[in-house]
Amino acid sequence: MKNYFGIHPSAIIGENVTLGEDVTIGARSIVYDNVVIGNGTFIGPDCIIGEPSVTIHAERDTYVNPTLSIGNNSLIRSGTIIYAGSNLGDHFETGHRVTIREQADIGHHVRVGTLSDIQGHCRIGNYVRLHSNVHVGHKSTIKDYVWIFPYVVLTNDPHPPSNTLVGVTIEEFAVVATMSVVLPGVTIGKDALVGASSLVRSDVAPEAVVVGNPGKQVASVRDIKSKFDGTPVYPWRETFDRGMPWQGIGYDKWQAELLAAK
Amino acid sequence: MKNYFGIHPSAIIGENVTLGEDVTIGARSIVYDNVVIGNGTFIGPDCIIGEPSVTIHAERDTYVNPTLSIGNNSLIRSGTIIYAGSNLGDHFETGHRVTIREQADIGHHVRVGTLSDIQGHCRIGNYVRLHSNVHVGHKSTIKDYVWIFPYVVLTNDPHPPSNTLVGVTIEEFAVVATMSVVLPGVTIGKDALVGASSLVRSDVAPEAVVVGNPGKQVASVRDIKSKFDGTPVYPWRETFDRGMPWQGIGYDKWQAELLAAK
Amino acid sequence: MKNYFGIHPSAIIGENVTLGEDVTIGARSIVYDNVVIGNGTFIGPDCIIGEPSVTIHAERDTYVNPTLSIGNNSLIRSGTIIYAGSNLGDHFETGHRVTIREQADIGHHVRVGTLSDIQGHCRIGNYVRLHSNVHVGHKSTIKDYVWIFPYVVLTNDPHPPSNTLVGVTIEEFAVVATMSVVLPGVTIGKDALVGASSLVRSDVAPEAVVVGNPGKQVASVRDIKSKFDGTPVYPWRETFDRGMPWQGIGYDKWQAELLAAK
Repeated sequence: MKNYFGIHPSAIIGENVTLGEDVTIGARSIVYDNVVIGNGTFIGPDCIIGEPSVTIHAERDTYVNPTLSIGNNSLIRSGTIIYAGSNLGDHFETGHRVTIREQADIGHHVRVGTLSDIQGHCRIGNYVRLHSNVHVGHKSTIKDYVWIFPYVVLTNDPHPPSNTLVGVTIEEFAVVATMSVVLPGVTIGKDALVGASSLVRSDVAPEAVVVGNPGKQVASVRDIKSKFDGTPVYPWRETFDRGMPWQGIGYDKWQAELLAAK
Repeated sequence: MKNYFGIHPSAIIGENVTLGEDVTIGARSIVYDNVVIGNGTFIGPDCIIGEPSVTIHAERDTYVNPTLSIGNNSLIRSGTIIYAGSNLGDHFETGHRVTIREQADIGHHVRVGTLSDIQGHCRIGNYVRLHSNVHVGHKSTIKDYVWIFPYVVLTNDPHPPSNTLVGVTIEEFAVVATMSVVLPGVTIGKDALVGASSLVRSDVAPEAVVVGNPGKQVASVRDIKSKFDGTPVYPWRETFDRGMPWQGIGYDKWQAELLAAK
Repeated sequence: MKNYFGIHPSAIIGENVTLGEDVTIGARSIVYDNVVIGNGTFIGPDCIIGEPSVTIHAERDTYVNPTLSIGNNSLIRSGTIIYAGSNLGDHFETGHRVTIREQADIGHHVRVGTLSDIQGHCRIGNYVRLHSNVHVGHKSTIKDYVWIFPYVVLTNDPHPPSNTLVGVTIEEFAVVATMSVVLPGVTIGKDALVGASSLVRSDVAPEAVVVGNPGKQVASVRDIKSKFDGTPVYPWRETFDRGMPWQGIGYDKWQAELLAAK
């Protein structure tokens, strides 16, 4: 495949852009001023990296683009738009046409699926998985190892439209299934599971299973047995390891090794 | 930021295009024939403005692109596609990758969020706010000062698939929260509030609060008190003014001044 | 309209690409290696056709792009991304910014709406209509003449996150309305109708009407009468023919002619 890797001649690179070693900037992608891209990172075609803040329209000649930093070994697929003023960790990966706005603080090994829309002013931990079309409202906090499935919306305005936004918090290892909506200010507890098409109006306890509209707790995750062999499947970290730091050794052994190393 | 404003050299401009003063056409945007763009309007990169009707495929050599008019001081963000044959007012603003099809008649000071999909053959008033990923079906009517939040769908086919479409009507100042669906032919009354993840199957009275699947009236908007200080929050025009014509003076005083000026 | 048809000078065409007669490749579209495009097919601007598999990042110099085949007389609208390794029939049509991943096997006369996301490893029959923003998970099977409306998600993971995916099956002539979610492994029967905003947790019988969250059978499709004239409207193939092979003659006569021709 010719010209797939490297800086494509049709790419547009702004001023004061820092590119690490072995970086790709795909055909017709734009990298605006003051972007820092780590080693081994691949930016596909048709991306806009370092999109200016809306203040550029008022400031024009005096506008200075805030720094955007993207870590090492990241994979940004075509059509993705990332605003200036965010900070993304290593091994960051997007699907196509993702939008990430300003002041998003995102950890390492995070994946964000096609068409997802991260509104900025939010914190996302490490090893988080957002599937396609996830909408993360301003002021959301998503902790490590959280999974969010397609068409989930994390809201933030208790009295729309208003000026006082209150973000959602999703604790470690929690899972939110397809098409669920989490109302403003709600906390979803560690290891909890929100079923598909749920409307979550109040806090979800750790390890709780919540389903329905309105969402109600119907079980503990420990009650859920595999449809295939009847064995327990949650907390999922005990049964799933693909792409996780405990891959190949299991969560418990990995934890034990971490403790032993201290 | 170099080359951010003005007509980018990589832009493609068709025939009989009228550009006002101080217009920007961003990198790699296409403006097809017979588009009129007002003064001070900014078109970001990667937009398609005046997308031809599907009839071009049958007509080819004889096809004439219908006029598309975009008002003054508008801000069209990157990746937006607007079909020929629509009419958009002044101070129109889009997020990224918005799609607006033919015969959309849109007023002044309207904002349409990232990835929203306006199917055309519809009317949208003034000061309307559509957040991200709002889907407006053919034949919808959205009146002034309406707010619609992410992933809301306004449907139009009572017997899908069929040939007789019946649009939704949303009256002034009404609010439809995230992930709600409004069924064909439904009218949502003035100042009403539809809660998140609702399925609205029948008309909603003015000032009613409707929630649930199926949606049911549970209160009047006047019953809703602020979670922060217990004061009334609706009708929202009494408590919120950002970007509205009564900004800084309040709705009641603005109304009084309008009356006095008559 | 100048330069609307034909191979645009700004298009990028890879190696071993086979273009039929009268093919259009729009401005700034990329066609990667080993793509085959049939006669009379139109690819709009800003498309990526034959997007490489993720394995290219590990293989680089040795990577060979799998073949992507698109049939005759197809209409691929701007911004569509189609991965290498899929097979699309004749008269295939997309809206804007559709994503179709690898190993999608799609029949003839299929339409896929704006922003829909077909995750690959799936089978879609003939004359299928997917409206905007439909999400088709891996391992889905969609049979002939199925209609799926905006924001429907076909899921596949019974225990998210897990390694054992179980796709959805939608039988011929079934209709799934807006914003519904179909859970993993569910079969929706022939001629069935799933109402808007439903959560389908178990198999749907042929001709059943299922609505709600959780979805429950409330009627037979034969019980539904037109809101306009009280006549039966389902099975829809008896009352609707636009774009269908029985257009102008009716379904029953078309079936009779097919039988007589055998």
